[in-house]
Formats: sequence, C-alpha cells, structure tokens
Amino acid sequence: MSFTPATAEQRFVLEHIAGISELSEAATPDLVDAVLEGAGAFAAGEWAPLDRAGDTVGAKWTPEGVKMPAGYPEAYKAYVEGGWGTIGSPEAYGGQGLPFTLATAVLETLGTANTGFALCPTLNVGAIESLVHHGTPEQQDLWLPKLSTGEWTGTMNLTEPQAGSDVGALKSRATPRADGKWSITGTKIFISFGDHDMADNIVHLVLARTPDAPPGTKGISLFLVPKYRLDANGNPGEFNDVRVVSIEHKMGLHASPTCVLSFGDNGDCVGELIGPELGGMRAMFTMMNNARLNVGLQGVQVAERATQRAVAYARERIQSARAGAGREPVAIIEHPDVRRMLLRMKAQTMAARALVYLAASQVDRANAGDAAAKARLELLTPLAKAHGTDIGNEVASLGVQVHGGMGYIEETGAAQHFRDARITPIYEGTNGIQAADLVGRKLSMDNGGTLFALTAQVRSEAQDAGLIALIEACEEVGRHMLASEVDDRLAGSYPFLTMLSVAVCGWLMEKQGGIAASAEGDRAFLAMKQAAARFYVEQIVPEAMGLKAAALANADVLYSINAETFAA
Amino acid sequence: MSFTPATAEQRFVLEHIAGISELSEAATPDLVDAVLEGAGAFAAGEWAPLDRAGDTVGAKWTPEGVKMPAGYPEAYKAYVEGGWGTIGSPEAYGGQGLPFTLATAVLETLGTANTGFALCPTLNVGAIESLVHHGTPEQQDLWLPKLSTGEWTGTMNLTEPQAGSDVGALKSRATPRADGKWSITGTKIFISFGDHDMADNIVHLVLARTPDAPPGTKGISLFLVPKYRLDANGNPGEFNDVRVVSIEHKMGLHASPTCVLSFGDNGDCVGELIGPELGGMRAMFTMMNNARLNVGLQGVQVAERATQRAVAYARERIQSARAGAGREPVAIIEHPDVRRMLLRMKAQTMAARALVYLAASQVDRANAGDAAAKARLELLTPLAKAHGTDIGNEVASLGVQVHGGMGYIEETGAAQHFRDARITPIYEGTNGIQAADLVGRKLSMDNGGTLFALTAQVRSEAQDAGLIALIEACEEVGRHMLASEVDDRLAGSYPFLTMLSVAVCGWLMEKQGGIAASAEGDRAFLAMKQAAARFYVEQIVPEAMGLKAAALANADVLYSINAETFAA
Repeated sequence: MSFTPATAEQRFVLEHIAGISELSEAATPDLVDAVLEGAGAFAAGEWAPLDRAGDTVGAKWTPEGVKMPAGYPEAYKAYVEGGWGTIGSPEAYGGQGLPFTLATAVLETLGTANTGFALCPTLNVGAIESLVHHGTPEQQDLWLPKLSTGEWTGTMNLTEPQAGSDVGALKSRATPRADGKWSITGTKIFISFGDHDMADNIVHLVLARTPDAPPGTKGISLFLVPKYRLDANGNPGEFNDVRVVSIEHKMGLHASPTCVLSFGDNGDCVGELIGPELGGMRAMFTMMNNARLNVGLQGVQVAERATQRAVAYARERIQSARAGAGREPVAIIEHPDVRRMLLRMKAQTMAARALVYLAASQVDRANAGDAAAKARLELLTPLAKAHGTDIGNEVASLGVQVHGGMGYIEETGAAQHFRDARITPIYEGTNGIQAADLVGRKLSMDNGGTLFALTAQVRSEAQDAGLIALIEACEEVGRHMLASEVDDRLAGSYPFLTMLSVAVCGWLMEKQGGIAASAEGDRAFLAMKQAAARFYVEQIVPEAMGLKAAALANADVLYSINAETFAA
Repeated sequence: MSFTPATAEQRFVLEHIAGISELSEAATPDLVDAVLEGAGAFAAGEWAPLDRAGDTVGAKWTPEGVKMPAGYPEAYKAYVEGGWGTIGSPEAYGGQGLPFTLATAVLETLGTANTGFALCPTLNVGAIESLVHHGTPEQQDLWLPKLSTGEWTGTMNLTEPQAGSDVGALKSRATPRADGKWSITGTKIFISFGDHDMADNIVHLVLARTPDAPPGTKGISLFLVPKYRLDANGNPGEFNDVRVVSIEHKMGLHASPTCVLSFGDNGDCVGELIGPELGGMRAMFTMMNNARLNVGLQGVQVAERATQRAVAYARERIQSARAGAGREPVAIIEHPDVRRMLLRMKAQTMAARALVYLAASQVDRANAGDAAAKARLELLTPLAKAHGTDIGNEVASLGVQVHGGMGYIEETGAAQHFRDARITPIYEGTNGIQAADLVGRKLSMDNGGTLFALTAQVRSEAQDAGLIALIEACEEVGRHMLASEVDDRLAGSYPFLTMLSVAVCGWLMEKQGGIAASAEGDRAFLAMKQAAARFYVEQIVPEAMGLKAAALANADVLYSINAETFAA
C-alpha cells in the first residue's frame, strides 16, 4: 500500500496548535509548506518502499558488523544529501536552525514511511542536544557538523544487563588516560542502531563510572566514544575497540538493529568526557528528554500508517450487505462498527499528533527563554511519550482488527505496525516510569502550579461539559495526589496520566474542530477534522472519566497481599 | 518458565460460579479434582514443553502435507491415549459424558500450556456437536467414536477468499452422485489444522452449495468430507482428493497450521450431507456456538499463561529501590505500578474465566432441558467470546510491559502470548460481529427479556454501588437500543458489549470475593481472590461506566462524512 504524507494535517496542527509562526521568523508559511511537501515526497519515494524489507529481512549481525537490508545505505545517503537531518540542527554547525517543532513534523513523516529506519535519525537528535548543551567548543566543532547532517549517526548507551530502568546500577568504567581522555570498558545492551553500515562513523554517548565515583546515579559521567577515532584532519581513522557482540531477536522494529556493544575488550577504547565528571545524569536527561518526545512521535507515526492502511483496506474490501440497507454487499467501511473503528483511529491519531506537537512547540519556546514554556514542556513530556505510544498501540491493534483474518497474515502489513508499536511504551523510560515522573517530579513543580496552570487554561477554553468535567476531575486528582503518600500517588499514576492526557487532547481536538468549522479550504479535510474532533470529545473524553476511581484509589489493595501470594 | 495448572482456581470457579455439582451427578468433587489434577499434570508434562517450538519452528507445509514440529505427534497421541479428549464426549461413542463445563476446564489447562496446540481439540468439539445434533444414526456410528477420542480430528470449513464474515457469499459446490453421496469442489481458506500429521484421518465439515440452491445463506448445506475415505471396515482408506495448497504466514499461533484447502481438484472428492439439504446455516451455528465459547476460553488460556510468566519475572527481576523505602533495589513486583499491572492481570484473568465458565455451565443446563439457561447461553456467548478475547489481549500486552525491554525480545516468551492472542478477537466471528449479534438477535430475544432477566439478577445480588450503577446503565442502554434504528444500535454495540461484560464479570468477581472472605482453606489463594475481586469492583467496573456515552451515541457522527473523506 502506498503511503500518503499527512501534509495538510501537519500544516493545520503546526499552525493552530504549535503556533509555528511564533516559533521562528524563518518558518514562514511558504517555507513550512516546502519542507513538509519535500519531506513527504522524499519519504514516500525513498523510505516507504523499504519498510517491508526492513521487517522481513531486517538488520543482520555479521562478524564485520551489522548489515542493513538492501537499499537502506543508499536511502540513508539520500536522506543526508537531501538535508533532511539538518532541519532543526544548529546553523553554526551546518544545520538550518529551524524550529524543533518543524523537525518533529519531518521526523514524523519519515517514521510514518518507515518507523524502524527513522529511529536512526531520532537518536541523532539526542546526541546533538547533549553536545550543544554540555560539550566544549572544541568538541562541538569536532563532532557537531557531521552529526547535524547525519553523515555520522549517534547512539545512547545507558542500559546494562543489571541496569535497565535503574540507570544508577550501571557498571561500565572510565579511567583517565595520560592524554586527558578516558579509557572505556563495559557492556551495554539494547543499543538501537549501535552498529550499521550506513554512515562513516557512529558516535556513541556512553554513561560510565569514573574511579572512586559514588554509587548510584551521582557517580555517573557521560562520555563520547566514537566507533572510529578521528585522525588529525577530523576524519574517521583507527577502530576504537567498540564491538557489536550480537543483535536482539525482537518482536518487531526489525529494521532497527538492537545491539549488545562491548567497549574496550582489548583495552583500546578511548572516550572523551562530555560535561563535568559526575554530571552524567544531567547530560543524560538532556539527551533523553527530546528523545521521549520523539518516542511519543513514534506513536503518531505508527498510528498514521496503520490508519491509512486500514482505511484503504476497508474501502476496497467488499463484504456483507449493510443491515437495513438492501442485499448488495458493500465496502466494509460502510458497516457501522468498522466505521467506528476507523473514526476512532483517525481521532486518536490526530489527538496524539496534537499532543506531541504541542509539547514540541514548548521546546522552541523554552529555547527562546520562555520559562513557563519550559515548565509546561516538562509536564507534557511524560504525557506525550506515554499517551502517544499508548495511542500508537491501540490504533495499530484496531488496524489489525479492521483487516479481519487478513490482519493476522503478515503479508498485508497490518501486523507489522502492531509488532513495531509494542516497544514504544517500553523504551526511553517505560510508560510506568513516565507516570511516576508525572506524579512525582512534574506534579511537585511549583507545588502543583505547573499542572494547575495547564488545567486552568484547558478549563477556561473548553466548551463541552464532559470535557470540563474531566479536567475538573484531573484537578481533583492532582490536589489529592499532592497530599498523598508516595505509594498512593504511584498506585494511581497511570490512570491519572491517561486522564490528564485525554483532557489535554480533548482540549486540542475541540479547538481544532472549532477552527475547522469556520475555516475555508479543503472541504474533505475540514469535514474529517470536525468529525474526528466530535468523536473524540463525545466518546473518548467520557471514557477517561472512568479512570477517576483508579486514579484516586490508594495503594492498599495492591499491598493487601504479598509477592508470594501472586504465585498462589 | 514452567507452567502451573490453575487447579485451585478452576475448582473454585467450577463450584461457585458454574455450580458443577448441579450439572451432573457423575461430577463429584473427587472426580472433578482427579480430572483437573490429571489434566494439569498431563498438560504441564507433555504439552507445555512444546509451546516454544510450536512458535519458533511452527507447523510446516510440505508437498506431502503439513508437518508438525518435533514432538507434537507423540504428544497428541498421549493426549488421545490419556482420554483427555473424551471428557465431554457422548458416552454412546466412547466418551465420558461429563459436563461440557468440566471439559472446558480441561481444555483451558491444555491451552494454557500450549494455546496453538489446543486449538486442534477445540475444533473437534464443534465437529462432534454437529454430528450429535444433525447427523444420522449411521453417520454418528461411523464418525463419532474416533472423533470423541480424538483419534481423528475435525475442522470447520466456512471461509472462502470472497466470503469471510459473509458466509452467504461462499461458492464451493456439492453435486449429487449416483450413490447418494456428493461430489465436492471448491477452495476454503483459514482452515485451522486443515492438515497435519498427528491423526489417522481428518474430518472436514464443509459448507457448500448444492445445484439450484438459492443465493445467500439460505442456499448452503453442510457436508462431511474426510481426508481419507473409510473402507468397508470403517478404517481410513483411499485419499479423498482434499489438498492442502499452502499454509498462512501468521503473526502468531504458529503451532496451528492455517490452511488453504482445495477440494476435488481431480473431481474425486466425496462428501456426505449432514442434516437436510439447505440446512447448512443451522448446522453451522451448532458447530460455531460452542466454538465461540472455546475461543473466549483461549482468552483465558493466554491470560493465565501471560500472568504466570509476568509474576515469575517480576518476582525475580531486581531493579531500583522502592520509592520512600530505602536504597536497596527490590524485586520489581514491589513497585506500585508493576504491582498494579500484575493485580490487574490476575483480576482480568479471573473475570474472563468466571464469564466463560458461567456460559459453559449454561450449555450443560440447556442440554438438560432448561429453557432459561438456553436463552442465557445465547446471550452470554458473544460476551464470553468477545470480552474473553479482549481480556486475553490486554493481559498479554501487560505481560510484555511487566517484562520491560526483555518483553520485546522473543526469547523471554512474553511476546509469543501477545502475538498468539491477537487472532482471537478475529476468528469465529470478529468481536464486532459478536457485538452486532448482541444488539441484534440477542437483545431482541423475548423483546429484551433475556437481557433484562440477567441484569435484574445482577442488580439484585450486587453489593457495590458502582457495580449497581453500571448494571443500571446497561439496562438504560438496553432499553435505548430496543427503541433505536439498526445503525444506531450497531454504532454503540461494541461499547455496550464491553459494559455488559464488565457488569457481569463484576457481579461474578464480587460474589467470589465474598465467598473467599468467609471460606476456609488455602489462605494465599483466598487472599489473592479477595484482592483481585476488590480491584475488579473498585477499579475496573468504574472504567466501564466511561463507555456509556459511546454506547448511547448514535451513528450520526460516523456518517457525517463519507468513505472517501476518510482518505482525505
């Protein structure tokens, strides 16, 4: 099935939700159009056709390193040459310096065409951010130009076998060398694009412990460890003793090699410190925060593609007469429950996109010095990551269902989205960890002030009584949680995250529906937007009210039994 | 991970929900115990160890037919020899004539050990039912003894490429032969266990059209078409021109070969009519109805296994200190949100089991002549099938989430359950079709009387205010739907099905919690039951109230746009 870039929808959300015109003088409507359309044409022409081979062939481990499926190196080169990696990169280093929000839209398009492939440039964003915020000028000069263009790719090396969500438990070591650099040893797992054959160098950002570092997260430092050391001219030279031991056999996202990396097996792996010694956690959060938004964006990517595929199938597949409307079989999109699924897919995809773009726009506003936007970004990040990926999974599952039995057959492609999506609620901090972040650090910001500033805005702008009731319920839960013990907050954290996300999405959908009602232009697009907005507010918002009891429930029932009893 | 049969739980639900002692004098507590424990030991010893190879190796097509993975033919033989297929089969044909409900518990255990494998005997049940109800005495004598033991296996041949959910569109043909039998031609797809190497014969039950049959479902007849014709002694002899053309490449359930079967390529495929000519739909419903309960039971199977696996992992995996409780990392089962997921998995699994067993017990009561039970069975069937499989999918997904990144790696096994489960909301009538059945034929039974008899019972027995509110909401929606147009009923059908299912499960869970509170015996089991019941009533029941708006929403928003607009 061909992929159609969601250009009109992206433009609408960029304008009305992100406020793109306020984010950068350079981001004129003409430029935004040109970028969206160019990225769409590129993604449809070069990346989408490789999506299936990414799944069926996948990245392969060889003794010489990871080999991508046929066509991927060329398609990656075309991406670099087209400048699609440079949209949001700093101008000082060859980037275009355009808003992060616009880069988000481009990344969405790439990932809708090919979710696994697009994870590679997604990781570059984190590496660039770390260097921009924590690198020395020399480091920036040395590494940023090629990372900005994508000629070199970046990775994030946090996880170790004993240290998954608990980063503080990691054991990789960095010991000082005479030349001021560091000798790196250790094993990292779950390293996406930890090796591949598409770029001249790979820039690993590695968390490790320095000698005598305190235990836990306070003892961690961030190092830049290239696959190939740079020679005197800044070109990749000697191999830096970083070996890809194996890649994982995953349920999906097969185009993305998930590597076990071994650093310094021969005692010859050299890294340089990024930021101060023991400052690794801060640098990691810089690297991860935008990465979390970009994982939320993967939810949008999968949802968009799954929806397009399901709509196309449902329009073509003729099956059964419509009840009460004659005996002729009709396209299944005409059957009420199939149509309900498709409209839900549409509405949820739009909601996730609006939520992620809203969060992305706070990055640009925060970068421009807006302190309130910075606070709102921090609040919205766990919502965009967790709820965006939850939506991606729900929509991909509905996509399988719309296909009926054919959805379970791999050849139709619906199953791939379902499998690809399933990692997104897990990596970059599980959605449970996002929920803990929401009711912990984010709720306590300004003693609830950041949350209540958002809910007050939603409450004042919302029109629908059910939406207003939901946001008031969120405020009630928020107040309750501020006064609760930590276990009780955590027990209700995930339901609360979903409630709050739906309230925010309801606000954004209602707003878009209102704008579409009075806008002029593509009538089909505007009609679809209004129908989706209405469906979201009338049917999805009330569902979230059903979570209030769970959000307010304390931890008693969870600990009324002990761990052994679960196995009884 | 080893599999532990849920014997105590099964016994409890058989006693308190199904009322097993009322279903058969033969089903004494001692016999029930012996069956449950014997089946558990057999499944754990012989079938569970093959589950992983079923997924990784899978059934394979060869020019000589489908080959099962190593060990499957022997394990199937052990199943036949152990008499595990005969529990509910008629005594007149070598069966034990025990309650269908007890056979359900045995099938659950087999399928929890190995979901894909257990689909094979699941299909036998339908074939046996068709013959018992619609076969001639000669046909029964000829086919039932070996089907009852499982020496021969059965299949259901409904689907054709152009006829999926719309059975009436099928084109396979049966033409009369001089000997009173029928010559069969046609192609069927999605035939589970349509071929394999585990039994001496395969008995295909095939829907086809006779000459001059009217179009649609009224023109369909049911035929018994063996893989091998029987010789004069009733033993499999000549090949009957039924070829397995290919098997599907599915997302999961790889132990179950999903076949394309071609009948009569050489004009030499002979079948016999089951029931009257043009009586195919009635016979099909006999075959499918219990099959629908057994697919709901697959939801229980997957949920039980995924929960066991997640609990075991969460007790072993040490990660992060518990918030507010020192600095030592703990098993992740101690973290509130992980524990919430596990308790939800437990509660949902118990709820699905109670719902399916309740429905199964109506089969036995209906067979004993209880008309009200027969009506209740018809009402509960779409709930058990759809909600049981929805729970299976939700719980399998939570199981992946509890495993974190390891859940996405195939080697841990959590992903297999997630993939295996995804077909269950699709086959044997998609869950959307179950919802349509609920708001159509089932709601209209006795003009709503069957529904309101159930809701009245739930309302009168329920204690929790939220549960009472939910059942009242179901009654309100039911009344609304009785007065609604068909499109409006269908638009709200799926949310209504979920609401009603949760209300019934809430009633069954509350009841079990109450019994457990005053029961004596295994204290851990009873504590777990009470905690799960409380969680279900306090947290899952209120969620379902959130669906009321969608259940009452009419179809306007769905048809406010046309099919083309979805692709805009």
